[in-house]
Amino acid sequence: MSTPAPGRLLLVPNALDHGNDPAPIESILALGVLEQAARLQHWVVEDARSARAFLKRVAAVAPLAVPLQAVAMTELPRARKGSREGIEPAQWQALLQPALAGHDLGLLSEAGLPAVADPGAAVVEAAHAAGLTVVPLAGPSALVLALAASGLNGQSFAFVGYLPQEAELRSKRLRELEALSRQQRQTQLFIETPYRNPALAAALLASLQPATRLSISCGLTLEGGWSRCLTVAQWRRAPPVVSDRMPAVFALLAA
Amino acid sequence: MSTPAPGRLLLVPNALDHGNDPAPIESILALGVLEQAARLQHWVVEDARSARAFLKRVAAVAPLAVPLQAVAMTELPRARKGSREGIEPAQWQALLQPALAGHDLGLLSEAGLPAVADPGAAVVEAAHAAGLTVVPLAGPSALVLALAASGLNGQSFAFVGYLPQEAELRSKRLRELEALSRQQRQTQLFIETPYRNPALAAALLASLQPATRLSISCGLTLEGGWSRCLTVAQWRRAPPVVSDRMPAVFALLAA
Repeated sequence: MSTPAPGRLLLVPNALDHGNDPAPIESILALGVLEQAARLQHWVVEDARSARAFLKRVAAVAPLAVPLQAVAMTELPRARKGSREGIEPAQWQALLQPALAGHDLGLLSEAGLPAVADPGAAVVEAAHAAGLTVVPLAGPSALVLALAASGLNGQSFAFVGYLPQEAELRSKRLRELEALSRQQRQTQLFIETPYRNPALAAALLASLQPATRLSISCGLTLEGGWSRCLTVAQWRRAPPVVSDRMPAVFALLAA
Repeated sequence: MSTPAPGRLLLVPNALDHGNDPAPIESILALGVLEQAARLQHWVVEDARSARAFLKRVAAVAPLAVPLQAVAMTELPRARKGSREGIEPAQWQALLQPALAGHDLGLLSEAGLPAVADPGAAVVEAAHAAGLTVVPLAGPSALVLALAASGLNGQSFAFVGYLPQEAELRSKRLRELEALSRQQRQTQLFIETPYRNPALAAALLASLQPATRLSISCGLTLEGGWSRCLTVAQWRRAPPVVSDRMPAVFALLAA
């Protein structure tokens, strides 16, 4: 018996609405991507429930190759978000079994692209180590949409994840990022857990220099989403009302 | 006579194939995005010829609101790519006239998202200054696809544009980026003009530390595109064959 050719790891984008938006999935994802997702019978997913909801939305546009109940799904091992602590490399490799057995395998996040500001990079790393072909499918990234909408420097930018929660440490980190942005002329992007968005927005107005340009993008691609870029001095005159329920992306460029 | 409500600035994604790929546009862009593009009668574009080619592809899926010849297009003022040198702020503002007169206005690059590693940020900046609503539409970004496909750190990453061309300066810059990557645990992404891709790949193998992980993504979303991430030591044993015609994205994460 010959060994089957290995399958590929497909990085499948999700919508940014966490399933809370009535918009049809083809308003945000390409038909070609939906058709490829519909063909996959093996998945590694951030969350099985949201993955099934995603496949139901896909099925409304492109018929699934097998009934939803027959689609094999394994959840990513749960560590602290973004951390691989306590997870053995062998666990990541085990997730790739379907691909090693010859099946294309999908990797799916709860929103946006897997492995970008989201779990999944360890699975991709294991796939390269195993010599599998990795295919990223085009889809929305809140970070890059926020960057485009900011009008800040898109030729040099960094995403630095979450800021410290403690006020003193957060101010220190913001001064660091502002200095780095000035020195490198580099846009600095960061995010926060939605319920802390208003507190972060207030801290930004308090800590940053008046001439620093600050972009806030809230709920991009969602109903009621918006993006606005002003100097800190301008924001102070009309402070932003940032949702504590919608994901937001913050970006700064020092003067 | 009352002043019309201003139009919005829509950031419209393009495919990544520069019109050289026979794939239908709906394989890479969402129907919802194509429908919005089809309705726009006013555009600011990187290149009028490629923009007309884009709208022909759009029209094959979503009928244009007016015939292509009736669509108004203005090209971005041409400065050195990514530079605003010698272009007055008033020139950017002038591009927004249709929006100020009440029409939605599209902004389009030759490939990918406008204002991300591409011209257009100055127009977006002018739109915010004029109080216009800026709406980024979801689409492919080669940078973020390359990051996802790399399996490198997607919780902290930077795009630094082009490296110096001169060998000595390029090595120095690579050592800087490697040190920064190690210190911040931050993935560093950069690009090159396609015909210099092979030279850059060779320089990376020569300059970087053996344990540094190096990802090369070439022609993502295109026929024949690929993405591979190995340590520099592994690449040295089997050097990459990087196209000198397809766009490539390089990313490193120091050990």
